[in-house]
Amino acid sequence: MLISIELTEKPIPASATEAPPTVGSIVEFRGVVRASENGAPISALRYEAYGPMAVSVMRQILESLAEEHPCHSVQVVHRHGVVPVGETAVAVTVCSAHRGEGFALLAKFMDRLKQDVPIWKVEALA
Amino acid sequence: MLISIELTEKPIPASATEAPPTVGSIVEFRGVVRASENGAPISALRYEAYGPMAVSVMRQILESLAEEHPCHSVQVVHRHGVVPVGETAVAVTVCSAHRGEGFALLAKFMDRLKQDVPIWKVEALA
Repeated sequence: MLISIELTEKPIPASATEAPPTVGSIVEFRGVVRASENGAPISALRYEAYGPMAVSVMRQILESLAEEHPCHSVQVVHRHGVVPVGETAVAVTVCSAHRGEGFALLAKFMDRLKQDVPIWKVEALA
Repeated sequence: MLISIELTEKPIPASATEAPPTVGSIVEFRGVVRASENGAPISALRYEAYGPMAVSVMRQILESLAEEHPCHSVQVVHRHGVVPVGETAVAVTVCSAHRGEGFALLAKFMDRLKQDVPIWKVEALA
């Protein structure tokens, strides 16, 4: 499985996925900063990442999940620094032959990302 | 829940989703025509749709699923006619506050779409 992981402080562009002709399913998740946090209005979230470890842990999680849900490729782009309301904080795109393995890998990866990867919301900006 | 359903004979462009600031999750599925069908190489699939009924059934399915998995909006675009290998046959984008309801609605909708909606692969072109 091809794995691409990027941490960036810049806005994440719309994905333009190129897939080989064995791929029948492209499933993408974009996590977007919402306008309120714990009930209070905000203008942005600030994320901090422990970069090398975050990338390494994400790769381990994806390689582990690929054993049960083999996919063609996974691309992860995660922002750090200040991410304004309405912008994408994390984008994950999974290409696979069929949609079953793509949906399963993506849903499980997002759960693990929140639990195990050293990227945190450190501050909500009013 | 906002519902948009379109049947088209033209290529489906990359999505450019605009979501309000209550939306924290955008999940998109694209079903792409693969280069082989039942083990034989193909160049395209031809889909036929019973248009008005297909749109009506999709809307009913989405309204029913929204009771259990309330989301902000769902956009469905399905091709009919000839769809070449590598092009998108169906694109579904779900916007929701959190990813749980978006993933659930999307996965269940795709299962129901294949089972219950009168859109068929009628021919594989060599």
